[in-house]
Amino acid sequence: MEKNVLLTIEYDGTRFHGWQKQPGVRTVQGLLEEMLAVVCKTEIRLNGVSRTDAGVHALAHRASFAGEFGIPVERLKIAVNNLLSGRTSAVSKNADVRILDARRVPDSFHARFDARGKLYRYIIDNNRDMSVFNRNYRYHVARPLDLDKMREAASFVVGTHDFKCFQASGQEPDVDTVKTVYSLEVFEEPAGEGLISLEVSGDGFLYNMVRIITGTLVEIGLGRKKPRDMKQIIEGRDRRAAGHTAPPQGLYLAEVYYDERSFLDE
Amino acid sequence: MEKNVLLTIEYDGTRFHGWQKQPGVRTVQGLLEEMLAVVCKTEIRLNGVSRTDAGVHALAHRASFAGEFGIPVERLKIAVNNLLSGRTSAVSKNADVRILDARRVPDSFHARFDARGKLYRYIIDNNRDMSVFNRNYRYHVARPLDLDKMREAASFVVGTHDFKCFQASGQEPDVDTVKTVYSLEVFEEPAGEGLISLEVSGDGFLYNMVRIITGTLVEIGLGRKKPRDMKQIIEGRDRRAAGHTAPPQGLYLAEVYYDERSFLDE
Repeated sequence: MEKNVLLTIEYDGTRFHGWQKQPGVRTVQGLLEEMLAVVCKTEIRLNGVSRTDAGVHALAHRASFAGEFGIPVERLKIAVNNLLSGRTSAVSKNADVRILDARRVPDSFHARFDARGKLYRYIIDNNRDMSVFNRNYRYHVARPLDLDKMREAASFVVGTHDFKCFQASGQEPDVDTVKTVYSLEVFEEPAGEGLISLEVSGDGFLYNMVRIITGTLVEIGLGRKKPRDMKQIIEGRDRRAAGHTAPPQGLYLAEVYYDERSFLDE
Repeated sequence: MEKNVLLTIEYDGTRFHGWQKQPGVRTVQGLLEEMLAVVCKTEIRLNGVSRTDAGVHALAHRASFAGEFGIPVERLKIAVNNLLSGRTSAVSKNADVRILDARRVPDSFHARFDARGKLYRYIIDNNRDMSVFNRNYRYHVARPLDLDKMREAASFVVGTHDFKCFQASGQEPDVDTVKTVYSLEVFEEPAGEGLISLEVSGDGFLYNMVRIITGTLVEIGLGRKKPRDMKQIIEGRDRRAAGHTAPPQGLYLAEVYYDERSFLDE
Protein backbone atom coordinates (compact mmCIF):
# COMPACT_ATOMS: atom_id res chain seq x y z
CA MET A 1 0.00 0.00 0.00
CA GLU A 2 1.35 3.40 -0.93
CA LYS A 3 2.10 5.84 1.87
CA ASN A 4 2.40 9.61 1.54
CA VAL A 5 4.86 11.32 3.91
CA LEU A 6 5.65 14.94 4.81
CA LEU A 7 9.17 15.72 6.06
CA THR A 8 10.34 18.78 8.01
CA ILE A 9 14.04 19.33 7.35
CA GLU A 10 16.77 21.49 8.89
CA TYR A 11 20.01 22.17 7.01
CA ASP A 12 23.11 24.28 6.98
CA GLY A 13 23.32 25.31 3.32
CA THR A 14 27.03 26.21 3.38
CA ARG A 15 28.34 23.07 1.73
CA PHE A 16 25.32 22.34 -0.47
CA HIS A 17 24.72 23.47 -4.05
CA GLY A 18 21.21 24.33 -2.95
CA TRP A 19 18.14 22.15 -2.55
CA GLN A 20 17.44 20.95 -6.05
CA LYS A 21 19.02 17.73 -7.29
CA GLN A 22 21.63 18.24 -9.99
CA PRO A 23 24.06 15.72 -11.41
CA GLY A 24 27.58 15.75 -10.00
CA VAL A 25 27.08 18.18 -7.13
CA ARG A 26 26.02 17.82 -3.51
CA THR A 27 22.43 18.99 -3.01
CA VAL A 28 20.00 18.56 -0.12
CA GLN A 29 17.38 16.86 -2.27
CA GLY A 30 19.95 14.53 -3.83
CA LEU A 31 21.42 13.53 -0.48
CA LEU A 32 18.04 12.96 1.19
CA GLU A 33 16.71 10.92 -1.74
CA GLU A 34 19.84 8.75 -1.51
CA MET A 35 19.34 8.16 2.23
CA LEU A 36 15.60 7.57 1.87
CA ALA A 37 16.24 4.99 -0.87
CA VAL A 38 18.47 3.07 1.57
CA VAL A 39 15.91 3.21 4.37
CA CYS A 40 12.81 2.59 2.22
CA LYS A 41 14.56 0.08 -0.08
CA THR A 42 12.97 1.77 -3.10
CA GLU A 43 13.59 4.83 -5.22
CA ILE A 44 12.19 8.01 -3.67
CA ARG A 45 11.37 11.30 -5.37
CA LEU A 46 11.00 14.30 -3.04
CA ASN A 47 8.70 17.24 -3.74
CA GLY A 48 10.31 20.16 -1.95
CA VAL A 49 8.46 23.35 -1.13
CA SER A 50 11.35 25.69 -2.03
CA ARG A 51 14.42 25.47 -4.23
CA THR A 52 16.84 27.24 -1.94
CA ASP A 53 20.13 28.44 -3.47
CA ALA A 54 23.66 27.39 -2.56
CA GLY A 55 24.53 28.79 0.86
CA VAL A 56 20.91 29.40 1.93
CA HIS A 57 19.86 27.62 5.13
CA ALA A 58 16.63 26.03 6.33
CA LEU A 59 15.23 25.87 9.84
CA ALA A 60 12.16 23.96 8.66
CA HIS A 61 12.03 23.14 4.98
CA ARG A 62 9.22 20.80 3.93
CA ALA A 63 9.13 18.04 1.34
CA SER A 64 6.68 15.23 0.65
CA PHE A 65 7.05 11.87 -1.08
CA ALA A 66 4.86 8.88 -1.81
CA GLY A 67 5.96 5.27 -2.11
CA GLU A 68 5.42 1.67 -1.18
CA PHE A 69 7.89 0.78 1.54
CA GLY A 70 8.06 -1.41 4.62
CA ILE A 71 9.56 0.88 7.29
CA PRO A 72 6.90 2.44 9.56
CA VAL A 73 6.67 6.22 9.11
CA GLU A 74 7.36 6.77 12.82
CA ARG A 75 10.81 5.14 12.39
CA LEU A 76 11.81 7.10 9.28
CA LYS A 77 13.21 10.13 11.09
CA ILE A 78 15.62 8.20 13.30
CA ALA A 79 16.67 5.82 10.52
CA VAL A 80 17.55 8.63 8.10
CA ASN A 81 19.19 10.78 10.79
CA ASN A 82 21.36 7.85 11.87
CA LEU A 83 22.58 7.50 8.30
CA LEU A 84 23.18 11.25 7.97
CA SER A 85 25.00 11.76 11.25
CA GLY A 86 27.01 8.55 11.08
CA ARG A 87 27.46 6.44 14.17
CA THR A 88 31.18 6.32 14.59
CA SER A 89 32.49 9.79 13.89
CA ALA A 90 31.56 12.78 15.99
CA VAL A 91 31.31 15.06 12.99
CA SER A 92 30.01 13.22 9.97
CA LYS A 93 30.29 14.47 6.40
CA ASN A 94 26.50 14.67 6.21
CA ALA A 95 25.67 16.04 9.67
CA ASP A 96 24.70 19.34 8.05
CA VAL A 97 21.18 18.10 7.32
CA ARG A 98 18.68 16.52 9.70
CA ILE A 99 15.04 15.46 9.60
CA LEU A 100 13.06 17.20 12.35
CA ASP A 101 9.77 15.44 11.70
CA ALA A 102 8.24 12.79 9.43
CA ARG A 103 4.48 12.31 9.41
CA ARG A 104 1.96 10.44 7.35
CA VAL A 105 -0.36 12.68 5.31
CA PRO A 106 -3.39 11.98 3.07
CA ASP A 107 -2.66 10.63 -0.43
CA SER A 108 -3.80 13.90 -1.97
CA PHE A 109 -1.29 16.00 0.00
CA HIS A 110 1.62 17.71 -1.80
CA ALA A 111 4.20 19.75 0.14
CA ARG A 112 4.45 22.49 -2.47
CA PHE A 113 0.95 22.70 -3.95
CA ASP A 114 -0.70 22.67 -0.52
CA ALA A 115 1.59 25.30 1.05
CA ARG A 116 -0.26 28.51 1.90
CA GLY A 117 2.83 30.56 2.39
CA LYS A 118 6.36 30.72 3.69
CA LEU A 119 8.34 32.68 6.24
CA TYR A 120 11.93 33.63 5.52
CA ARG A 121 14.35 35.15 8.01
CA TYR A 122 17.39 37.15 6.96
CA ILE A 123 20.08 37.85 9.58
CA ILE A 124 22.35 40.89 9.30
CA ASP A 125 25.37 41.40 11.53
CA ASN A 126 25.55 45.17 11.96
CA ASN A 127 28.69 45.24 14.09
CA ARG A 128 31.81 46.97 12.85
CA ASP A 129 33.65 43.62 12.84
CA MET A 130 32.17 40.18 12.48
CA SER A 131 33.52 37.05 14.12
CA VAL A 132 34.82 34.37 11.76
CA PHE A 133 32.32 31.98 13.34
CA ASN A 134 29.44 33.84 11.68
CA ARG A 135 30.85 34.16 8.17
CA ASN A 136 28.54 31.49 6.71
CA TYR A 137 25.46 32.48 8.72
CA ARG A 138 25.05 36.26 8.56
CA TYR A 139 25.41 39.17 6.17
CA HIS A 140 27.98 41.58 7.52
CA VAL A 141 26.99 45.26 7.13
CA ALA A 142 29.68 47.20 8.96
CA ARG A 143 28.16 50.69 8.82
CA PRO A 144 25.19 51.44 11.12
CA LEU A 145 21.73 50.83 9.68
CA ASP A 146 18.79 53.13 10.39
CA LEU A 147 16.07 50.67 11.35
CA ASP A 148 13.28 53.26 11.37
CA LYS A 149 13.96 54.07 7.73
CA MET A 150 14.06 50.38 6.87
CA ARG A 151 10.71 49.85 8.62
CA GLU A 152 9.13 52.76 6.78
CA ALA A 153 10.32 51.32 3.47
CA ALA A 154 9.15 47.83 4.47
CA SER A 155 5.59 49.07 4.85
CA PHE A 156 5.43 49.67 1.07
CA VAL A 157 6.32 46.04 0.38
CA VAL A 158 3.49 44.51 2.40
CA GLY A 159 0.38 43.64 0.36
CA THR A 160 -0.41 42.29 -3.09
CA HIS A 161 1.82 43.79 -5.76
CA ASP A 162 3.53 42.98 -9.00
CA PHE A 163 7.03 42.32 -7.63
CA LYS A 164 8.86 42.12 -10.94
CA CYS A 165 11.41 44.61 -9.55
CA PHE A 166 12.53 41.96 -7.02
CA GLN A 167 12.91 39.12 -9.51
CA ALA A 168 16.45 38.14 -10.51
CA SER A 169 17.02 39.19 -14.12
CA GLY A 170 17.14 36.47 -16.75
CA GLN A 171 14.17 34.58 -15.37
CA GLU A 172 11.45 33.07 -17.53
CA PRO A 173 9.16 35.92 -18.63
CA ASP A 174 5.98 33.87 -18.15
CA VAL A 175 6.25 33.66 -14.35
CA ASP A 176 3.37 35.34 -12.54
CA THR A 177 5.10 38.18 -10.71
CA VAL A 178 2.05 39.20 -8.67
CA LYS A 179 2.52 37.97 -5.10
CA THR A 180 1.16 38.82 -1.67
CA VAL A 181 3.58 39.72 1.13
CA TYR A 182 1.72 39.15 4.40
CA SER A 183 4.29 40.81 6.64
CA LEU A 184 7.80 42.25 6.61
CA GLU A 185 9.32 42.96 10.01
CA VAL A 186 12.69 44.56 10.78
CA PHE A 187 13.88 44.07 14.34
CA GLU A 188 16.93 43.89 16.54
CA GLU A 189 17.54 40.49 18.08
CA PRO A 190 16.50 40.67 21.75
CA ALA A 191 19.88 39.33 22.91
CA GLY A 192 21.40 42.45 21.39
CA GLU A 193 24.88 41.93 19.93
CA GLY A 194 24.07 44.10 16.92
CA LEU A 195 22.06 41.48 15.07
CA ILE A 196 19.21 42.65 12.87
CA SER A 197 16.60 40.23 11.56
CA LEU A 198 14.25 40.72 8.65
CA GLU A 199 11.26 38.40 8.66
CA VAL A 200 9.11 38.25 5.56
CA SER A 201 6.08 36.05 5.01
CA GLY A 202 4.06 35.71 1.84
CA ASP A 203 2.12 33.39 -0.39
CA GLY A 204 4.99 32.96 -2.81
CA PHE A 205 8.38 34.40 -3.68
CA LEU A 206 10.12 35.07 -6.97
CA TYR A 207 13.66 33.88 -7.60
CA ASN A 208 16.03 35.88 -5.28
CA MET A 209 13.12 38.04 -4.10
CA VAL A 210 13.97 37.95 -0.39
CA ARG A 211 17.64 38.67 -1.06
CA ILE A 212 16.80 41.62 -3.34
CA ILE A 213 14.29 43.03 -0.81
CA THR A 214 17.04 42.73 1.81
CA GLY A 215 19.64 44.43 -0.40
CA THR A 216 17.20 47.27 -1.12
CA LEU A 217 16.36 47.71 2.57
CA VAL A 218 20.07 47.74 3.46
CA GLU A 219 20.68 50.55 0.95
CA ILE A 220 17.81 52.48 2.50
CA GLY A 221 19.14 51.79 6.01
CA LEU A 222 22.54 53.15 4.92
CA GLY A 223 20.93 56.30 3.48
CA ARG A 224 21.81 55.53 -0.16
CA LYS A 225 18.13 55.34 -1.04
CA LYS A 226 15.11 56.92 0.66
CA PRO A 227 12.29 54.98 2.32
CA ARG A 228 9.76 56.33 -0.16
CA ASP A 229 11.93 55.12 -3.07
CA MET A 230 10.63 51.65 -2.22
CA LYS A 231 7.17 52.60 -3.45
CA GLN A 232 8.53 53.80 -6.80
CA ILE A 233 10.82 50.80 -7.17
CA ILE A 234 7.85 48.44 -6.84
CA GLU A 235 5.65 50.49 -9.17
CA GLY A 236 8.43 50.74 -11.77
CA ARG A 237 8.70 46.93 -12.15
CA ASP A 238 12.38 47.30 -13.10
CA ARG A 239 15.01 45.11 -11.42
CA ARG A 240 17.69 47.76 -12.08
CA ALA A 241 15.95 50.28 -9.83
CA ALA A 242 16.02 47.96 -6.81
CA GLY A 243 19.05 47.36 -4.60
CA HIS A 244 21.74 44.67 -4.72
CA THR A 245 21.09 40.99 -4.11
CA ALA A 246 22.10 40.32 -0.50
CA PRO A 247 24.39 37.29 -0.13
CA PRO A 248 22.89 33.83 0.46
CA GLN A 249 24.51 33.05 3.79
CA GLY A 250 22.21 35.32 5.83
CA LEU A 251 19.00 33.71 4.54
CA TYR A 252 16.95 31.04 6.32
CA LEU A 253 13.72 29.35 5.20
CA ALA A 254 12.09 29.51 8.62
CA GLU A 255 8.56 28.16 8.25
CA VAL A 256 6.05 26.84 5.73
CA TYR A 257 2.35 27.41 6.36
CA TYR A 258 -0.32 24.78 5.73
CA ASP A 259 -4.02 24.71 6.32
CA GLU A 260 -4.37 22.16 9.12
CA ARG A 261 -7.23 20.58 7.17
CA SER A 262 -4.82 19.47 4.44
CA PHE A 263 -3.32 17.02 6.98
CA LEU A 264 -6.70 15.33 7.49
CA ASP A 265 -8.18 12.59 5.37
CA GLU A 266 -11.42 13.57 3.66
CA MET B 1 65.79 47.32 11.67
CA GLU B 2 64.16 44.21 13.02
CA LYS B 3 60.66 44.52 14.48
CA ASN B 4 59.04 42.10 16.91
CA VAL B 5 55.25 41.73 16.62
CA LEU B 6 52.55 40.05 18.70
CA LEU B 7 49.38 38.90 16.90
CA THR B 8 46.00 38.08 18.43
CA ILE B 9 44.16 35.64 16.16
CA GLU B 10 40.60 34.30 15.92
CA TYR B 11 39.85 31.14 13.96
CA ASP B 12 37.21 28.56 13.27
CA GLY B 13 39.19 25.31 13.51
CA THR B 14 36.71 23.18 11.54
CA ARG B 15 38.59 23.14 8.25
CA PHE B 16 42.10 23.36 9.66
CA HIS B 17 44.43 20.50 10.54
CA GLY B 18 45.22 22.38 13.71
CA TRP B 19 47.59 25.25 14.36
CA GLN B 20 50.99 23.76 13.67
CA LYS B 21 52.45 23.92 10.17
CA GLN B 22 52.68 20.56 8.44
CA PRO B 23 53.49 19.83 4.81
CA GLY B 24 50.55 19.20 2.50
CA VAL B 25 47.71 20.13 4.86
CA ARG B 26 45.90 23.36 5.68
CA THR B 27 47.00 24.71 9.07
CA VAL B 28 46.50 28.09 10.73
CA GLN B 29 50.23 28.68 11.17
CA GLY B 30 50.94 27.67 7.57
CA LEU B 31 48.24 29.92 6.15
CA LEU B 32 49.20 32.94 8.28
CA GLU B 33 52.91 32.58 7.49
CA GLU B 34 52.01 32.52 3.80
CA MET B 35 49.91 35.70 4.07
CA LEU B 36 52.49 37.48 6.24
CA ALA B 37 55.21 36.64 3.71
CA VAL B 38 53.15 38.41 1.02
CA VAL B 39 52.53 41.46 3.18
CA CYS B 40 56.02 41.67 4.71
CA LYS B 41 57.80 40.64 1.50
CA THR B 42 60.05 38.31 3.52
CA GLU B 43 59.81 34.87 5.04
CA ILE B 44 58.05 34.87 8.43
CA ARG B 45 58.20 32.25 11.16
CA LEU B 46 55.42 32.42 13.76
CA ASN B 47 55.84 31.38 17.39
CA GLY B 48 52.38 30.31 18.50
CA VAL B 49 51.38 29.99 22.12
CA SER B 50 49.38 26.78 21.66
CA ARG B 51 49.32 23.94 19.15
CA THR B 52 45.57 23.50 18.91
CA ASP B 53 44.31 20.28 17.30
CA ALA B 54 42.20 19.89 14.18
CA GLY B 55 38.67 21.14 14.88
CA VAL B 56 39.66 23.20 17.95
CA HIS B 57 38.79 26.90 17.74
CA ALA B 58 40.44 30.09 18.99
CA LEU B 59 38.81 33.30 20.18
CA ALA B 60 42.20 34.89 20.88
CA HIS B 61 45.22 32.79 20.04
CA ARG B 62 48.58 34.60 20.26
CA ALA B 63 51.68 34.33 18.12
CA SER B 64 54.78 36.47 17.79
CA PHE B 65 57.30 36.93 15.00
CA ALA B 66 60.37 39.03 14.33
CA GLY B 67 61.61 40.28 11.00
CA GLU B 68 62.89 43.14 8.91
CA PHE B 69 60.02 44.43 6.82
CA GLY B 70 58.73 47.70 5.46
CA ILE B 71 55.02 47.68 6.27
CA PRO B 72 54.17 49.63 9.44
CA VAL B 73 52.91 47.35 12.23
CA GLU B 74 49.68 49.35 12.49
CA ARG B 75 48.83 48.39 8.89
CA LEU B 76 49.57 44.67 9.27
CA LYS B 77 46.16 43.66 10.60
CA ILE B 78 44.16 45.17 7.75
CA ALA B 79 46.62 44.04 5.08
CA VAL B 80 46.56 40.41 6.22
CA ASN B 81 42.80 40.38 6.83
CA ASN B 82 42.18 41.76 3.35
CA LEU B 83 44.16 38.88 1.90
CA LEU B 84 42.37 36.33 4.09
CA SER B 85 38.84 37.54 3.49
CA GLY B 86 39.30 38.22 -0.22
CA ARG B 87 37.86 41.33 -1.75
CA THR B 88 35.55 39.99 -4.39
CA SER B 89 33.76 37.00 -2.89
CA ALA B 90 31.45 37.32 0.07
CA VAL B 91 32.63 34.07 1.58
CA SER B 92 36.32 33.54 0.91
CA LYS B 93 38.11 30.24 1.26
CA ASN B 94 40.24 31.71 4.03
CA ALA B 95 37.64 33.78 5.90
CA ASP B 96 37.82 31.27 8.77
CA VAL B 97 40.83 33.04 10.29
CA ARG B 98 41.24 36.70 11.14
CA ILE B 99 43.78 38.89 12.94
CA LEU B 100 42.15 40.76 15.82
CA ASP B 101 45.22 42.74 16.82
CA ALA B 102 48.84 43.28 15.82
CA ARG B 103 51.14 45.23 18.11
CA ARG B 104 54.82 45.94 18.36
CA VAL B 105 56.53 44.33 21.36
CA PRO B 106 60.08 44.51 22.79
CA ASP B 107 62.75 42.46 21.01
CA SER B 108 62.97 40.10 23.97
CA PHE B 109 59.26 39.21 23.88
CA HIS B 110 58.16 35.69 22.87
CA ALA B 111 54.44 34.79 22.68
CA ARG B 112 54.90 31.34 24.19
CA PHE B 113 57.77 31.77 26.65
CA ASP B 114 56.28 34.95 28.12
CA ALA B 115 52.73 33.59 28.52
CA ARG B 116 51.71 33.29 32.16
CA GLY B 117 48.75 31.09 31.49
CA LYS B 118 45.82 30.34 29.26
CA LEU B 119 42.05 30.17 29.49
CA TYR B 120 40.16 27.51 27.56
CA ARG B 121 36.39 27.34 27.16
CA TYR B 122 34.56 24.12 26.36
CA ILE B 123 30.91 24.38 25.22
CA ILE B 124 28.49 21.50 25.74
CA ASP B 125 25.02 21.45 24.20
CA ASN B 126 22.91 19.61 26.78
CA ASN B 127 19.65 19.65 24.81
CA ARG B 128 18.02 16.40 23.73
CA ASP B 129 18.54 17.38 20.08
CA MET B 130 21.17 19.69 18.65
CA SER B 131 20.70 21.95 15.65
CA VAL B 132 22.84 21.15 12.62
CA PHE B 133 24.21 24.68 12.84
CA ASN B 134 26.10 23.80 16.02
CA ARG B 135 27.64 20.52 14.94
CA ASN B 136 31.15 21.97 14.53
CA TYR B 137 31.00 24.25 17.57
CA ARG B 138 29.62 22.29 20.51
CA TYR B 139 29.79 18.85 22.10
CA HIS B 140 26.31 17.33 22.12
CA VAL B 141 25.48 15.50 25.36
CA ALA B 142 21.81 14.51 25.02
CA ARG B 143 21.18 13.21 28.54
CA PRO B 144 20.86 15.76 31.37
CA LEU B 145 24.05 16.65 33.23
CA ASP B 146 24.12 17.22 36.99
CA LEU B 147 26.07 20.48 37.26
CA ASP B 148 26.42 20.33 41.04
CA LYS B 149 28.23 17.02 40.79
CA MET B 150 30.44 18.38 38.04
CA ARG B 151 31.30 21.42 40.18
CA GLU B 152 32.14 19.25 43.17
CA ALA B 153 34.47 17.16 40.99
CA ALA B 154 35.98 20.30 39.44
CA SER B 155 37.11 21.50 42.87
CA PHE B 156 39.60 18.59 43.05
CA VAL B 157 41.21 19.67 39.79
CA VAL B 158 42.05 23.22 40.89
CA GLY B 159 45.58 23.65 42.27
CA THR B 160 49.05 22.32 41.57
CA HIS B 161 49.03 18.60 40.79
CA ASP B 162 50.73 15.98 38.71
CA PHE B 163 48.14 15.73 35.91
CA LYS B 164 49.56 12.66 34.18
CA CYS B 165 46.05 11.14 34.28
CA PHE B 166 44.86 13.84 31.87
CA GLN B 167 47.69 13.47 29.36
CA ALA B 168 46.89 11.69 26.09
CA SER B 169 48.64 8.32 26.09
CA GLY B 170 51.64 7.88 23.84
CA GLN B 171 53.18 11.25 24.73
CA GLU B 172 56.87 11.77 25.38
CA PRO B 173 57.61 10.49 28.90
CA ASP B 174 59.94 13.37 29.74
CA VAL B 175 57.23 16.06 29.75
CA ASP B 176 56.77 17.72 33.12
CA THR B 177 53.23 16.68 34.06
CA VAL B 178 53.03 18.95 37.11
CA LYS B 179 50.81 21.93 36.25
CA THR B 180 48.76 24.49 38.12
CA VAL B 181 45.07 24.88 37.32
CA TYR B 182 44.05 28.34 38.54
CA SER B 183 40.30 27.86 38.11
CA LEU B 184 37.76 25.45 36.65
CA GLU B 185 34.22 26.78 36.41
CA VAL B 186 31.10 24.93 35.25
CA PHE B 187 28.16 27.15 34.41
CA GLU B 188 25.02 27.43 32.34
CA GLU B 189 25.15 30.08 29.66
CA PRO B 190 23.05 33.06 30.86
CA ALA B 191 20.98 33.07 27.65
CA GLY B 192 19.78 29.62 28.64
CA GLU B 193 19.16 27.29 25.69
CA GLY B 194 20.72 24.35 27.55
CA LEU B 195 24.31 25.39 26.91
CA ILE B 196 26.91 24.49 29.53
CA SER B 197 30.36 26.06 29.52
CA LEU B 198 33.47 24.81 31.24
CA GLU B 199 36.15 27.44 31.71
CA VAL B 200 39.57 26.31 32.81
CA SER B 201 42.63 28.49 33.34
CA GLY B 202 46.12 27.36 34.21
CA ASP B 203 49.81 27.92 33.73
CA GLY B 204 50.12 25.15 31.17
CA PHE B 205 48.21 22.21 29.74
CA LEU B 206 49.27 18.72 28.68
CA TYR B 207 48.28 17.32 25.31
CA ASN B 208 44.48 16.80 25.28
CA MET B 209 44.26 17.80 28.95
CA VAL B 210 41.21 20.06 28.64
CA ARG B 211 39.34 17.54 26.51
CA ILE B 212 40.07 14.70 28.97
CA ILE B 213 39.04 16.85 31.96
CA THR B 214 35.81 17.62 30.07
CA GLY B 215 35.17 13.96 29.24
CA THR B 216 35.74 13.01 32.88
CA LEU B 217 33.41 15.76 34.13
CA VAL B 218 30.73 14.69 31.64
CA GLU B 219 30.88 11.11 32.94
CA ILE B 220 30.50 12.45 36.48
CA GLY B 221 27.61 14.69 35.39
CA LEU B 222 25.87 11.65 33.87
CA GLY B 223 26.35 9.64 37.08
CA ARG B 224 28.78 7.10 35.59
CA LYS B 225 31.52 8.27 37.95
CA LYS B 226 31.26 9.97 41.35
CA PRO B 227 32.53 13.47 42.11
CA ARG B 228 35.09 12.12 44.59
CA ASP B 229 36.46 9.74 41.94
CA MET B 230 38.14 12.82 40.49
CA LYS B 231 40.50 12.99 43.46
CA GLN B 232 41.54 9.35 43.04
CA ILE B 233 41.89 9.72 39.27
CA ILE B 234 44.37 12.56 39.74
CA GLU B 235 46.28 10.80 42.51
CA GLY B 236 46.45 7.58 40.49
CA ARG B 237 48.29 9.27 37.58
CA ASP B 238 46.79 6.72 35.17
CA ARG B 239 45.15 7.91 31.92
CA ARG B 240 42.95 4.80 31.85
CA ALA B 241 41.17 5.78 35.07
CA ALA B 242 40.06 9.17 33.68
CA GLY B 243 37.11 9.67 31.32
CA HIS B 244 36.95 9.83 27.53
CA THR B 245 38.54 12.56 25.43
CA ALA B 246 35.75 15.00 24.60
CA PRO B 247 35.62 15.88 20.88
CA PRO B 248 37.60 18.86 19.55
CA GLN B 249 34.70 20.91 18.17
CA GLY B 250 33.50 22.14 21.59
CA LEU B 251 36.91 23.57 22.57
CA TYR B 252 38.01 27.21 22.30
CA LEU B 253 41.31 28.80 23.26
CA ALA B 254 39.74 31.87 24.84
CA GLU B 255 42.56 33.93 26.32
CA VAL B 256 46.30 34.03 26.91
CA TYR B 257 47.65 35.83 29.97
CA TYR B 258 50.74 38.04 29.93
CA ASP B 259 52.38 40.16 32.51
CA GLU B 260 51.77 43.71 31.25
CA ARG B 261 55.43 44.49 31.94
CA SER B 262 56.52 42.07 29.22
CA PHE B 263 55.03 44.49 26.68
CA LEU B 264 57.29 47.31 27.89
CA ASP B 265 60.83 47.97 26.82
CA GLU B 266 63.38 47.72 29.59
